[in-house]
Amino acid sequence: MNPDFFQQLDKVIHEKSRMAIMSTLASSAEFSFTELRDTLAMTDGNLTTHIRTLQKSGYVSVSKSFSDNRPLTTCALTRDGRTAFGEYVDLLEEIIGQARGSK
Amino acid sequence: MNPDFFQQLDKVIHEKSRMAIMSTLASSAEFSFTELRDTLAMTDGNLTTHIRTLQKSGYVSVSKSFSDNRPLTTCALTRDGRTAFGEYVDLLEEIIGQARGSK
Repeated sequence: MNPDFFQQLDKVIHEKSRMAIMSTLASSAEFSFTELRDTLAMTDGNLTTHIRTLQKSGYVSVSKSFSDNRPLTTCALTRDGRTAFGEYVDLLEEIIGQARGSK
Repeated sequence: MNPDFFQQLDKVIHEKSRMAIMSTLASSAEFSFTELRDTLAMTDGNLTTHIRTLQKSGYVSVSKSFSDNRPLTTCALTRDGRTAFGEYVDLLEEIIGQARGSK
């Protein structure tokens, strides 16, 4: 059991809803805000709050444009976000390996 | 991507320090409070707070006795705690599988 592993888990990504957002964004080049909200069954307010946290950490980029004269907000993982998510998943895998070994 | 997986993650166990406590306790029948504190490099106060949360959820049992005339506090996973931790780890594994598939 290496206790450091747990403390190394990225706080920003470890929160359940943000794990879900990062996982979803990792599966594609970009998502519209609406698609993301519907995929994750989150409220606008909740998703906005978490996206802001992820933006502040430099993990998610948000761009606003127009599509058919309607405002369109799209979200994507940044390169840093993809790296951080990869490292987070690697670390979780180590932790699971330890937990499985200890059962 | 199944968004339900994330919401099913047990809040009590998902907190980093409690993940560390549960993982450590899963590796043995019981630990003294002191061993646990030293293994995890946590403060007395911090460990006490988390152990209380785990006790309230029925995941950890705490017993007080004497050893060489000194008070000895021991902590162990309850049967429910072992089951909940097993389910938590299974779910994390599913999530990692999805994340790996989506990269």
